[in-house]
Amino acid sequence: MTRRPSRFWLPALLTAAVGLWPVLASAAAPGHAGSVDPSIGTGGDGHTFPGATVPFGMIQLSPDTAMPDFKHAYKWAAGYQYGDPTIMGFSHTHFSGSGHSDMGDVLVMPIAGDVKLDPGDPTKPGSGYRSRFSHATEVEHAGYYAVTLADYGVRAELTAGRRVGWHRYTFPKDKPAHVLLDLRPSIYDYPGKVLWARLRVRPDGTVSGCRTTRGWAPGRQLCFAMRFNQPMVSRTLYDRETNVVYKGFKGPGNQPQDHDAENGRALEGVFDFGKLKSPLVVKVSISSVSEANAIANLDQDGKGWDFDARRAEATAMWNKALSSIDVSGTKTQQTQFYTALYHAMLSPTLSMDVNGEYRGPDHEVHTAKGFDFYSSWSLWDVYRAQQPLMVLLRPDLSTDFIQSLIAAQQASPFGILPVWAYQGLETWCMIGYHAVPVIADAYLKGVRGFDANAAMKAMVASATYGPYGDLADYMKLGYVPIDKEPEAASKTLEYAYDDWSLAQMATAMGKTRIAATFDKRATNWRNAWDPKTGFMRAKLSNGQFRTPFDPTYAGYGSDYTEGNAWQYSWYVPQDVAGLITAMGGDAKFDAKLDELFDAKVDPSHFKNVEDITGLIGWYAHGNEPSHHIAYLYDYAGEPWKTQERLKQIMETQYAARPDGLSGNDDLGQMSAWYIFTALGFYPVTPASDQYAIGRPFVPKAVIHLTNGHTFTVVADHLDAAHPYVGKVTLNGKPLDRVYLHHAEILAGGELHFTMQATPNRSWGHDLAARPTSMSRYGQ
Amino acid sequence: MTRRPSRFWLPALLTAAVGLWPVLASAAAPGHAGSVDPSIGTGGDGHTFPGATVPFGMIQLSPDTAMPDFKHAYKWAAGYQYGDPTIMGFSHTHFSGSGHSDMGDVLVMPIAGDVKLDPGDPTKPGSGYRSRFSHATEVEHAGYYAVTLADYGVRAELTAGRRVGWHRYTFPKDKPAHVLLDLRPSIYDYPGKVLWARLRVRPDGTVSGCRTTRGWAPGRQLCFAMRFNQPMVSRTLYDRETNVVYKGFKGPGNQPQDHDAENGRALEGVFDFGKLKSPLVVKVSISSVSEANAIANLDQDGKGWDFDARRAEATAMWNKALSSIDVSGTKTQQTQFYTALYHAMLSPTLSMDVNGEYRGPDHEVHTAKGFDFYSSWSLWDVYRAQQPLMVLLRPDLSTDFIQSLIAAQQASPFGILPVWAYQGLETWCMIGYHAVPVIADAYLKGVRGFDANAAMKAMVASATYGPYGDLADYMKLGYVPIDKEPEAASKTLEYAYDDWSLAQMATAMGKTRIAATFDKRATNWRNAWDPKTGFMRAKLSNGQFRTPFDPTYAGYGSDYTEGNAWQYSWYVPQDVAGLITAMGGDAKFDAKLDELFDAKVDPSHFKNVEDITGLIGWYAHGNEPSHHIAYLYDYAGEPWKTQERLKQIMETQYAARPDGLSGNDDLGQMSAWYIFTALGFYPVTPASDQYAIGRPFVPKAVIHLTNGHTFTVVADHLDAAHPYVGKVTLNGKPLDRVYLHHAEILAGGELHFTMQATPNRSWGHDLAARPTSMSRYGQ
Repeated sequence: MTRRPSRFWLPALLTAAVGLWPVLASAAAPGHAGSVDPSIGTGGDGHTFPGATVPFGMIQLSPDTAMPDFKHAYKWAAGYQYGDPTIMGFSHTHFSGSGHSDMGDVLVMPIAGDVKLDPGDPTKPGSGYRSRFSHATEVEHAGYYAVTLADYGVRAELTAGRRVGWHRYTFPKDKPAHVLLDLRPSIYDYPGKVLWARLRVRPDGTVSGCRTTRGWAPGRQLCFAMRFNQPMVSRTLYDRETNVVYKGFKGPGNQPQDHDAENGRALEGVFDFGKLKSPLVVKVSISSVSEANAIANLDQDGKGWDFDARRAEATAMWNKALSSIDVSGTKTQQTQFYTALYHAMLSPTLSMDVNGEYRGPDHEVHTAKGFDFYSSWSLWDVYRAQQPLMVLLRPDLSTDFIQSLIAAQQASPFGILPVWAYQGLETWCMIGYHAVPVIADAYLKGVRGFDANAAMKAMVASATYGPYGDLADYMKLGYVPIDKEPEAASKTLEYAYDDWSLAQMATAMGKTRIAATFDKRATNWRNAWDPKTGFMRAKLSNGQFRTPFDPTYAGYGSDYTEGNAWQYSWYVPQDVAGLITAMGGDAKFDAKLDELFDAKVDPSHFKNVEDITGLIGWYAHGNEPSHHIAYLYDYAGEPWKTQERLKQIMETQYAARPDGLSGNDDLGQMSAWYIFTALGFYPVTPASDQYAIGRPFVPKAVIHLTNGHTFTVVADHLDAAHPYVGKVTLNGKPLDRVYLHHAEILAGGELHFTMQATPNRSWGHDLAARPTSMSRYGQ
Repeated sequence: MTRRPSRFWLPALLTAAVGLWPVLASAAAPGHAGSVDPSIGTGGDGHTFPGATVPFGMIQLSPDTAMPDFKHAYKWAAGYQYGDPTIMGFSHTHFSGSGHSDMGDVLVMPIAGDVKLDPGDPTKPGSGYRSRFSHATEVEHAGYYAVTLADYGVRAELTAGRRVGWHRYTFPKDKPAHVLLDLRPSIYDYPGKVLWARLRVRPDGTVSGCRTTRGWAPGRQLCFAMRFNQPMVSRTLYDRETNVVYKGFKGPGNQPQDHDAENGRALEGVFDFGKLKSPLVVKVSISSVSEANAIANLDQDGKGWDFDARRAEATAMWNKALSSIDVSGTKTQQTQFYTALYHAMLSPTLSMDVNGEYRGPDHEVHTAKGFDFYSSWSLWDVYRAQQPLMVLLRPDLSTDFIQSLIAAQQASPFGILPVWAYQGLETWCMIGYHAVPVIADAYLKGVRGFDANAAMKAMVASATYGPYGDLADYMKLGYVPIDKEPEAASKTLEYAYDDWSLAQMATAMGKTRIAATFDKRATNWRNAWDPKTGFMRAKLSNGQFRTPFDPTYAGYGSDYTEGNAWQYSWYVPQDVAGLITAMGGDAKFDAKLDELFDAKVDPSHFKNVEDITGLIGWYAHGNEPSHHIAYLYDYAGEPWKTQERLKQIMETQYAARPDGLSGNDDLGQMSAWYIFTALGFYPVTPASDQYAIGRPFVPKAVIHLTNGHTFTVVADHLDAAHPYVGKVTLNGKPLDRVYLHHAEILAGGELHFTMQATPNRSWGHDLAARPTSMSRYGQ
């Protein structure tokens, strides 16, 4: 028996037809969304996805070209690699630019004609349901993606709302149309990854289900609901698992087969629509909580059937989000800038259903009261520049982000803030407790609307939880001992910075005892400093540095996290002056920076460490530990060298093409670095109020702040022949320091650069002109 | 770092000490709970458990002696076999008397001294954490169980509330006390059964977690919360899984190890209490929904720390439940009777948290409004006598049961009533849609308080859902074809009866169209009747009976469900008169019944069909298809033969000893048969208003009805020498028929038997005196 869905879509169509969607008109209005090229980063190591999403949206609906075994999956962390010849389907969850990965949930493939049930070999088009495609047929915009699936002659278009992914499939009129749903594959796949799944077709034609996977966040459940704008003529649900040890009473004579509902580890559904005269619209919602919530999300956030209206709405959302900054410049400059801003606004992602429910790190369901719960926290990356960029541009969202972090801490079985979390769950990826500087940076820059005491409690809990990353020994010894804990030098350095940021906020809140404790801990970087070798190193529990020592070695068993001594020895953002002194003063510091950038390094040196890419000497722009380094010349009185290095980095590490990111975008951190650097300043030390000034890369940028003020950056004579900053004025007055205060930006005004052909060696050279460090905010 | 729980238990102890529990006194009052012997059925094939529970309680806390691989697990369906020498722990969920099984969740073992982490080989005591025990140390009462674990010298006592299991462990004072929690094993085990689990210790010392298993109801999640009355001094959480393909970032340097929380497939926790001066009380709640709900269940249903008060409360609950019937008789008679009544009141079990939430067959969370949600529905068994017994004794509970069935149907992805469900989930075990007669029987006997229209809708949906048990063909052909569907003869017969019950209720509701449809379907038993062989058989789609045919064959591929033609050919409870006619009239019918009971059958005949036990000839009292058969002599005018057969069955199939049940108790069906039969009447045709009269087996029984009336059964001269009914009066007037109307019992009164040494061949011989069938209720 096949149940026909009731024609529930008819009233919806009528509703849409009478024009409930005025946004359609406004979406045609010009905006920066048109400057976004989502293909940037989809080749090489960028790991971005080309599909459709809205700012910080729960749904990232994107084509997947392959989902290999996790051992070979690094390149496919976003499911799509530009060089691939086939698309296996469109799935609804992705990370933008992550190194490790997961997701690829609710994979949907439109099929015209005969249905194959397996995706087939990516290297053998035609071997499965995957289809060949040509980049020439792709259209990629912020909030919209289209491609023609050559094997089926299907034009596939995607757009998205906050919680709903929209597909429009135009099938050839002479072939039966099918939609295949495959709940088996996922990004970073392996046999057994799907722990359990369920799938059903409801009497009204809604398809819904859930699956629990053992991926990066093990035991992750994701549910979904899916509707079609035309009635199915039939459908089949499959449980493709073979060699089942224990079947219970699943089988002939007991559980109804291929009807209405299935549960198992290898579920698929094929939904048949016959020959279609008009495009099939499919809308899909997700929920980390339940099928019922996914349906509620679809009901509330996915009204009607007007794909074009939804696309216009997505465009409008992007235009609004990107309107924070108006930049002038060439088309390529605009494309690079707005694509970077787009990439910087993809995470954290909404991870809450329309009823406020979300899943927390305890795997339990919670309800957000008075805020939106966001997840996808690549904190080791985004605390550096992406979150500070949001504090600058979107303090309203920062409030929600911080409430989300606090809520996650309160629901954590460990009582600590997220480390690397998504869909509410913890992955334990990377090091540090960098939610601490995210919160401190926001608080110290005036973001409010969250419970600061609860935040402080969460921060202290995270910084004192002994079992995490050997904080127990760190608190006892003042450093993380490498004989107890891997990557100990990186941990000591990053903990010390996190501690400093905590102390800054504690001070601002008048919590002097906490401040004193963490100010002291902030100096722990000195316990990693080896004056003999001139590098940061890991010590053993007995206080001796571990030997042998190779400052170029990175990888398994090293003192560092995705880096070597050359890359990590600069990580004292809270006390660059102290680091300069330790390194022997300005000249030696400066020379060592030069040595870093100018080293001759065999590119194969890091072939076993996936994330260390974008090399300039030992400097690795493709990974985060390097991101602040080019700005450090500022602190040694040589800002012209910062300007030189930034030019070198901007020219070699970013380009407006699919392989235009030299490393993983890391949930917007690579892109946020680009935005700040293009504007001419960078938050070397989040949670301080200072931005180190580099040099602008756009002739003019107008930042529209949420307080109603406007901060404009102008660069006169900006071109390839004028790469150096000559003079700088702020609101017409000469600025003789190489840093800005956050409050100066918030107040609005104009930062005016005059670029010149040769270095200005005197500007910013005086000690008083340099960015300070270890300073109290506002002092 | 080990967190010490705060001393949250101190206020609780004080609260208990000031005497909040007046029930303690009343529990000392005499009652029938003292006549219950939970050891009955714990040996042989009874599959009952000896542990502690309350009537229809969510928690069935009981010792487990072994949890073998599912291929060898039949004997251990309740986790305990009387002959076993060791106890591996105490788990919180069990089925009472099921054939197939699952459960054994949240296994707890007290350990004194060194801790072994694996249960060890049941045949090799000392090889693991399991402990030897002696039955001499066991105390088994309704709501209380105690045993001494010889290997540890630990006295273990168990009691239960509705949602909370209570343990009291008295440890030897000179050895460190530990409690081990093993989330790996379960009843009907196999490698890979645990799909995922989580486990944590909260800052207040509460241990909580969940696990999802792939058992009888695949994808079943069960959460729990556990608290101790004394503080832990330390604890360790383990993930014992080896050969993990993908670890994510679980491991050194990332997820904190052995602290506060774990998730994985093989979790254990060991909680250390040092040397204890006083008994350790442990209380454990469960929830199908969430850890939060389990904690709320513990908070609300598990107050304080007074184990003795909780035990007294459990005893009081049993005394109240068992007070429905006062029987006289020998101690053994009382033990057998009240143990049977106890076993008949163990299911369905409460499956709802204190906030009203429960998990439905769609695996989603629902909220019960205005009723308690019950599950553990062994419907193929309990529709016969256990549910009719509840309709008679506890119509108040029947209302909740029926609301639970309707709620389950409404949440079913298939839109049908439960088949064999527990903890809200469907197993698809056994055949038929026997929730239909459960509801019809209750409705027709006056149970109200549920939405009868919703019930009827659910019943019709279940009886017309084509993909289930080939109802599609049944509706088309009037029988289930064996070439399409296994066990087709049994299905045709049981569907036809279910259809009749549906028609009865539709008629009573005035739904004549539905009644007509299902009255017609009720005659479909005739399509299974083969006059040539004189047996019920399965037909092929082409209308021919399948050949070859062996009326003695049962098992894989047969026409029947756990039975053969001899056993199944009597299954027309809705039209026994029609069956008699088909079989050639009273004499032939009677002779065939004799042939059934008197056949010489090699006991090894059914060695490959686990459930066919309790043989008397081909009659198999250990399995349900036989349960009505002894009463069928009544319908052929030979009630004295019914009386003889009942004596034969009562004497050979029941005894007051561990192997005292000849077959699986099947969630109370075997025991309910005993109760009815001991009282002297039996619901051969649930959903009719008639009980066929057998003969009483107790000298006096007073049924206290919930309407305030009392119905008394008295048997004069009842002894071994007087096995036959001489005469019968109802309220002093001679009763010349061999059946009672339900309304006659409800009205209260006295049914008086005078027993005699020889058969009374005239009583009940006339056609008018026989139980009718195909009759409308009340007509």
